[in-house]
Amino acid sequence: MPRLKLKLSERSYDIHIANGALHNAGTLIKEEGIKGHLALISDSNVAPLYAESLTNSLKSAGYTYSLHTFLAGEKQKNLSSVERIANEMVEAGHDRKSNIVALGGGVVGDMAGFIASIYYRGIPFIQIPTTLMAQIDSSVGGKTAVDIDAGKNLIGAFHQPRLVIVDPDTLRSLSARVLREGMSEMVKHAAIRQRHMLPALAAMGREIDSGLSEQTLASLPELLAENISIKARIVEQDEHETLGIRAFLNLGHTIGHGIEASVPYGDILHGEVVSLGLRAAIYLSIKHCQLPQQDAQDILSCLKDIGLPLELPAEVDPTVALARTASDKKFEAGAIRFVLLSALEQPLIYNELSREDLADAIAELSRPLD
Amino acid sequence: MPRLKLKLSERSYDIHIANGALHNAGTLIKEEGIKGHLALISDSNVAPLYAESLTNSLKSAGYTYSLHTFLAGEKQKNLSSVERIANEMVEAGHDRKSNIVALGGGVVGDMAGFIASIYYRGIPFIQIPTTLMAQIDSSVGGKTAVDIDAGKNLIGAFHQPRLVIVDPDTLRSLSARVLREGMSEMVKHAAIRQRHMLPALAAMGREIDSGLSEQTLASLPELLAENISIKARIVEQDEHETLGIRAFLNLGHTIGHGIEASVPYGDILHGEVVSLGLRAAIYLSIKHCQLPQQDAQDILSCLKDIGLPLELPAEVDPTVALARTASDKKFEAGAIRFVLLSALEQPLIYNELSREDLADAIAELSRPLD
Repeated sequence: MPRLKLKLSERSYDIHIANGALHNAGTLIKEEGIKGHLALISDSNVAPLYAESLTNSLKSAGYTYSLHTFLAGEKQKNLSSVERIANEMVEAGHDRKSNIVALGGGVVGDMAGFIASIYYRGIPFIQIPTTLMAQIDSSVGGKTAVDIDAGKNLIGAFHQPRLVIVDPDTLRSLSARVLREGMSEMVKHAAIRQRHMLPALAAMGREIDSGLSEQTLASLPELLAENISIKARIVEQDEHETLGIRAFLNLGHTIGHGIEASVPYGDILHGEVVSLGLRAAIYLSIKHCQLPQQDAQDILSCLKDIGLPLELPAEVDPTVALARTASDKKFEAGAIRFVLLSALEQPLIYNELSREDLADAIAELSRPLD
Repeated sequence: MPRLKLKLSERSYDIHIANGALHNAGTLIKEEGIKGHLALISDSNVAPLYAESLTNSLKSAGYTYSLHTFLAGEKQKNLSSVERIANEMVEAGHDRKSNIVALGGGVVGDMAGFIASIYYRGIPFIQIPTTLMAQIDSSVGGKTAVDIDAGKNLIGAFHQPRLVIVDPDTLRSLSARVLREGMSEMVKHAAIRQRHMLPALAAMGREIDSGLSEQTLASLPELLAENISIKARIVEQDEHETLGIRAFLNLGHTIGHGIEASVPYGDILHGEVVSLGLRAAIYLSIKHCQLPQQDAQDILSCLKDIGLPLELPAEVDPTVALARTASDKKFEAGAIRFVLLSALEQPLIYNELSREDLADAIAELSRPLD
């Protein structure tokens, strides 16, 4: 089975990718040399699906554990949940020698990883992501966070997992919409580093409505491994996003976040706004960075084949989306750093966009795609 | 003026110690090359005393800042305060390029440092400790934390400051009791590494009731520098307390914490329980580790000269203090690690204490000192 290594000297870790890996998690964790009690953190959607199978595997491997769940949804990704779960963990006897296992999607991973980063000033944790978005993106790279009133992910830590276990079989339980949204980050990775992946992603995307074929499901471990490794190599080069390399992963995310923040949370999924944000970034890349039309077309047609949105939904007010993308204060401070492409596989940080540029790009999203 | 360096490769930092340093903070921060806005975090006791003088100094050095205060007291050292201040900071325009300045005692430093460790996944912070306890101990070494219902300091991070500014003149504003409690950590440091400091500490302690003499106040920067450097050298050797060296700083703290947790918080100050804990550790060190009687006497008479408590206050129930020191569960797990002394300057980790040993040591605290 594919096994990637994310190399960060003493914080290096393995990413195991295999169909059925979830049922083998106890053995994989044991082989990693992880000792101590385990605190499983999951949510009300995922725990009923996979907690029993996971805990059976942990028991077989000789681990003791406690299970801590919260109501599924980004609304629970806050400091109150952190505090409740930390108190529960103390009650369950966990100390600095325990480990956290995050079982779920991005919200679970973000919050469980954050708890791991601050519980007794930091304990190890293991990611078992169960959505495509989490498998491809959020479980890898050590970014953990919770939301506060003032904004999403504003409180957090860089805390690398000790081990990531990716079981593509869990994708069978996802709705078409949630599977699709995860694919937008795969397209983003391909656009930044591996354009040759675009046709395979488009082909997989075209299967989503009728259900992924067994052949595609069988090939998923290899496909995911190649795509995850794009992010892993970038994180290795710039773990804390200080060198302008990890920032490339924000392609499509600046306007995407603005759109996301302009509607009630959850009305449009993160991966869906990333698709819109990618179209906006492509528009600006053509305008300012000579992105070849063919390269632009390759990305857009891949997103279209997958069925990801490329036109602004009626509920989004472009004026609000613009305001949420970058405040006037930000422009005055001259601080807008935007990721664009001069070609496929050629991302760059562009600092010279005006407010009008962003307004144009958002307006473009209201036009039908040719 | 004394200037210590705490060496941790890329996380190394200076500790400036000078009477009047607070009024010079802007220059010191600027000399350190620190850029960006500053978020000052302080409490309702300290801000009225020193915030104006500090902010004048920051303004002179060209810094912009915002001030965030909370009601003084350990009760506020919690995640609700963290969330409120983080929201205020976002409102005030702070992003990942800002810095936090902690102005106050241990509670302020612990919480402000923790906020710095998680705000935008970590921003730099500067410690300006204003109590002896904070100057000698909590501002140095990068331990940050807040309390949760299940216990004190259970949520936190290792996050080293970029700079520590110690102004011994601020000690003039402390009550005799609060000044005294800070001295217990100085005695602990001397016992672990520099026994020759004990006479100077005893002499300083004898002055507290009538007020420190100008001569003592003038000599404080040197005295503090020598004492702080004991902790700094230990932190350099074992930053994350994984090697059994930093753990030596817990001398007197295991039973001390048990006593502290057995009464309503604040009834007995932290430094006072450390004094009691030191007497208990000395008792056990004589019993199990051949601590010479003369060494024991040197520590105890120093604590006595300072006026620190050496006998259990009537309000403490020894049974409760014992239960709070170590649960039965802990003993069953065989996990009691206790710092003892085989001689002055010879600390060790002792793993073989029984429940009866701890009960005896706590009972000893009810006997008058010879």
